[in-house]
Amino acid sequence: MRMAELSAESGLPVATIKFYLREGLLPQGVRTSATQATYGDAHLRRLRVIRALIDAGVSVARARKVLATLDEPPDEVAALLAEAHAAVAPSGEEDVPLAEIEDLAEQLGLQCWTHRPERLAEVARAMRTLREAGFALPPEVMRTYWTSMRHIAAAEIAEIPVGDPDEAVRYVVLGTALVEPLLLALRRVAEQLATVERFPPNP
Amino acid sequence: MRMAELSAESGLPVATIKFYLREGLLPQGVRTSATQATYGDAHLRRLRVIRALIDAGVSVARARKVLATLDEPPDEVAALLAEAHAAVAPSGEEDVPLAEIEDLAEQLGLQCWTHRPERLAEVARAMRTLREAGFALPPEVMRTYWTSMRHIAAAEIAEIPVGDPDEAVRYVVLGTALVEPLLLALRRVAEQLATVERFPPNP
Repeated sequence: MRMAELSAESGLPVATIKFYLREGLLPQGVRTSATQATYGDAHLRRLRVIRALIDAGVSVARARKVLATLDEPPDEVAALLAEAHAAVAPSGEEDVPLAEIEDLAEQLGLQCWTHRPERLAEVARAMRTLREAGFALPPEVMRTYWTSMRHIAAAEIAEIPVGDPDEAVRYVVLGTALVEPLLLALRRVAEQLATVERFPPNP
Repeated sequence: MRMAELSAESGLPVATIKFYLREGLLPQGVRTSATQATYGDAHLRRLRVIRALIDAGVSVARARKVLATLDEPPDEVAALLAEAHAAVAPSGEEDVPLAEIEDLAEQLGLQCWTHRPERLAEVARAMRTLREAGFALPPEVMRTYWTSMRHIAAAEIAEIPVGDPDEAVRYVVLGTALVEPLLLALRRVAEQLATVERFPPNP
């Protein structure tokens, strides 16, 4: 299809699609003349993924990394997950001292955390931000965060569609990036409910 | 203290502090001459909160709303939470049809969801983004998300320090904005662990 049709089918303005082409998020079409190119269904599917990433708050630079992992995934699931995480996780500019990571690993009951310490460093940084703001996280709440996230991760990883490698890659890579806004939105609804339960409105 | 001392104490460059003053995040100091002002401990504490919000990925515009809620909190906890949510939640530009919200409320087992439908609309939008990217969220995973977030919210709301109104406001408002990166970082660590458990590395 031509650019105009791609725009109509995807519901995206031509200028936006051209921006994605320039930024390397969308592969070039097949040139049919000096000024024209045609695009296929793969372009349309890719546009939907790009839109979803952008809608989920992923930056253009990070979306590019997510798409690169989708296009050339590593063979091992653990490596695939690590790449997907690296694409969307905040890049740690400051270093976290090893002692802080070791303390955290002990607090979370982790034995073999040395495999990918950068993810633990991220947790340590998030906790330091809380401390510096003078926000005291009650230990019971921290325990609940950790056990809840372990439940969530177990359910997610159990459902990886291992029989279909393409689907498995999409599941892991998109699940990492796109599910974050859903989880945060569900937390807000749940907080509302818990508040009404603890502090019933005056009749 | 003078601006130079405020900079030294907070570890922030003078230019950054002046930017926060201009943006209205930090209240002006007390003028002592046409070109000088003095600042107190309240400015230092406020700077730490601003830094924590910015480090947690909150934009300047949203940080301004969070700080406004801290400064003039509503009396009711439910209203306080709603303001804190509104400050950091994505602002819904597109409308979500009522039928979609009703379906979602039923799926989550909610009876009285009409109180603040905007938070449910946010969940509906996040789920639509997943669908449009061609990402099929397994129902079992969605159930685990919801039950886990209810556990988390119950633990959080149970720990609101109701005896100290100032602390309660800080807990609710900063907890809403600052805890999100911690939760997402913990999810990534937990996903790594679950992956290694399901797909043990080759020896």
